[in-house]
Amino acid sequence: MSPVVNTYPLSSYTFGTKEPKMEKDTSVADRLARMKVNYMKEGMRTSVEAILLVQEHNHPHILLLQIGNTFCKLPGGRLKPGENEIEGLKRKLTSKLGANSPALVPDWQIGECVAIWWRPNFETIMYPYCPPHITKPKECKKLFLVHLSEKEYFAVPKNLKLLAVPLFELYDNVQKLNVEQRYGPVISTIPQQLSRFQFNMITT
Amino acid sequence: MSPVVNTYPLSSYTFGTKEPKMEKDTSVADRLARMKVNYMKEGMRTSVEAILLVQEHNHPHILLLQIGNTFCKLPGGRLKPGENEIEGLKRKLTSKLGANSPALVPDWQIGECVAIWWRPNFETIMYPYCPPHITKPKECKKLFLVHLSEKEYFAVPKNLKLLAVPLFELYDNVQKLNVEQRYGPVISTIPQQLSRFQFNMITT
Repeated sequence: MSPVVNTYPLSSYTFGTKEPKMEKDTSVADRLARMKVNYMKEGMRTSVEAILLVQEHNHPHILLLQIGNTFCKLPGGRLKPGENEIEGLKRKLTSKLGANSPALVPDWQIGECVAIWWRPNFETIMYPYCPPHITKPKECKKLFLVHLSEKEYFAVPKNLKLLAVPLFELYDNVQKLNVEQRYGPVISTIPQQLSRFQFNMITT
Repeated sequence: MSPVVNTYPLSSYTFGTKEPKMEKDTSVADRLARMKVNYMKEGMRTSVEAILLVQEHNHPHILLLQIGNTFCKLPGGRLKPGENEIEGLKRKLTSKLGANSPALVPDWQIGECVAIWWRPNFETIMYPYCPPHITKPKECKKLFLVHLSEKEYFAVPKNLKLLAVPLFELYDNVQKLNVEQRYGPVISTIPQQLSRFQFNMITT
């Protein structure tokens, strides 16, 4: 009944570095202001993000990009107007984590959509539904499971770190408020969204 | 891309009452002790619960059974050893919400599994994964979306109340701790688990 996801050990992947990918904004206020400008030009922002899974100690881990020492985000980004979401996510993954040499870029297998989040206003808060009375949401963000092959090479921008975070760190009842503050609501409830999958943890 | 779920107005359903369904246990300690006895006899407990959706004011609502004035739960319950989960959930739904007259019992359409929770020990805490190093979990609980028809008759046990709770009440950032205490972790993250569905809200 449950869809099966193969996961491979973190050690079966290879990690290199590439040129830095700077954030477009230096503050939250700048980011929201840029969103507003883009909304005027292009309408609702659609963004796509990837859940890349590996395993360690027989437990699933999610690959997150860390900026500085605290803020973490899923790899992904904004679609161009009219862009297909699967193709757009592949483009974003290659930009964030693909090697400069096309032959080394993973053949991204985009799988199930696991969550959709809505931004009703030009504010940081997002909801897992479009709130009632909101007829013009400002952003729709979709999270997709990406099925990795057994071996891949990831090139991580030099200003970022790639972390493998265990599900049990994201779902931490004791530290719940700290976890929410560190990872935010979109990332911290990924364990619940993935619970319906059966992980086939392959140890090679 | 997103699976579509038709939802109908709360007002299109009819609610009656039937004989009380008393809780088997009068305390949490009793409940955990009974779980332990059953585990010795039958092994891991498997339970199934239903997410029944209706709509009001163009927003999805979940039907919850309220015991007393605070505690809420999803309709469902424990499977018999070897029982099929779909058939078992239908049996439990009929027991909890079906009329005594078989002709009036809804033709339960059990849909997608949206979450799976694990109880590693004879304790109240559950996780949306089987924690590492736990080889003998004590319970596995599966949540299924149930697709209701446009018209149904529900018979609610006299000692319980059936509430239609909006997603925005379960996903409440300001009151997050209160909501978690009232509804518990299994129910309070249902909005995130349902976010990948597209609700086709039919107003008849």
